[in-house]
Amino acid sequence: MSLQLHGYWRSSASYRVRIALHLKQLAFDYIPVHLVKGGGQQKAEPYTRINPSMLVPTFIDDDEDVVLNQSMAILEYLDDKYPDSPQLLPSHSLDKARVRALAQDVACDIQPITNLRILETLKSDFNASAEDVKAWNQKWITTGFDALEKRLQTRSGQYSYGYDVTLADVCLIPQVYNAIRFEVDMSVYPLISKIWENCNKLDAFKKAAPENQVDAIRS
Amino acid sequence: MSLQLHGYWRSSASYRVRIALHLKQLAFDYIPVHLVKGGGQQKAEPYTRINPSMLVPTFIDDDEDVVLNQSMAILEYLDDKYPDSPQLLPSHSLDKARVRALAQDVACDIQPITNLRILETLKSDFNASAEDVKAWNQKWITTGFDALEKRLQTRSGQYSYGYDVTLADVCLIPQVYNAIRFEVDMSVYPLISKIWENCNKLDAFKKAAPENQVDAIRS
Repeated sequence: MSLQLHGYWRSSASYRVRIALHLKQLAFDYIPVHLVKGGGQQKAEPYTRINPSMLVPTFIDDDEDVVLNQSMAILEYLDDKYPDSPQLLPSHSLDKARVRALAQDVACDIQPITNLRILETLKSDFNASAEDVKAWNQKWITTGFDALEKRLQTRSGQYSYGYDVTLADVCLIPQVYNAIRFEVDMSVYPLISKIWENCNKLDAFKKAAPENQVDAIRS
Repeated sequence: MSLQLHGYWRSSASYRVRIALHLKQLAFDYIPVHLVKGGGQQKAEPYTRINPSMLVPTFIDDDEDVVLNQSMAILEYLDDKYPDSPQLLPSHSLDKARVRALAQDVACDIQPITNLRILETLKSDFNASAEDVKAWNQKWITTGFDALEKRLQTRSGQYSYGYDVTLADVCLIPQVYNAIRFEVDMSVYPLISKIWENCNKLDAFKKAAPENQVDAIRS
């Protein structure tokens, strides 16, 4: 078995897949794709041959001849293929739908709007300053977290959906990491903050953290 | 059985769910949420009580006490709950992953960046003109479609993934509708254009089209 993850230390979507691989205790090669250096390695060959979207991550499972983009599709694939390790999705269709919706509250409504290429375009096409970019990120993260904090009141426990780690947590934690980086006031989100703390006690989340990757840049 | 879809005629995410409901021949009440009138009905009560994210759609299944946001979670829920009607996802985990990735190429990488609240913020916070907004939309739609057109070379047939309608088509068609609206040159995307034509021959896609909704505004 040879699993490869092409990613970037600070990419939220790469971070999600790292968490899942560590939760499921799967060995994998982590292959850094530097999103900034030389204009971005994701925009040039050889990377564009495996992922024409010029985004990370890309997941490769050699045994199955699988080359997959889209972190959410990769996470569900891992959950389908390795059901005996901790499941990221509950078994009942209604629980499953609720967990997916919580995950997508981050993966569809927050992360895509605040990722690197958007920030670069705000700077290049709208003359946005560093402060403008920070305000843009804070606006979309707080809009998303305001709603999420309300939703979590219904069914969260130790984690986003009850007492087991799910796909919702796998998406939430990298987003909180970004929120902290962009100085979002997390004190107004007690439930999200509690889940952040609980997840970060687990080995899989620690191993997956941006600072613990080989391509992390220490300032 | 009582199914309700709270949506907006031109919302891509609402359009996706309408397609799925019609493909599966499920009767539902369509409840318009006007995204523009009075600053947007999605931002006020009573709507925010069922969906604090202030986005459409929201899907309600009274029998199951289900109130679901996130169109992708709703689509998977419908596919889980009504497996005897045409399946939106293939059964094998690898095919499933590939179809999900194609769907998310639209649902995560294009649509969230080009939806109404983003365009409104570009205008209010960055003084964007109507032309700027159009250029922004065209940029992200063409970036996404350039990659998608390449991916479709491998496994598309009559539809995005072979010869059956899948989740990938359910996401793609509303995005093409938006591309046409924002005057993207579709002639450079022969595969996407072919799938657009093939899907629009089907009753479910016709019934779901924005212009055929009760809340459509005819210019």
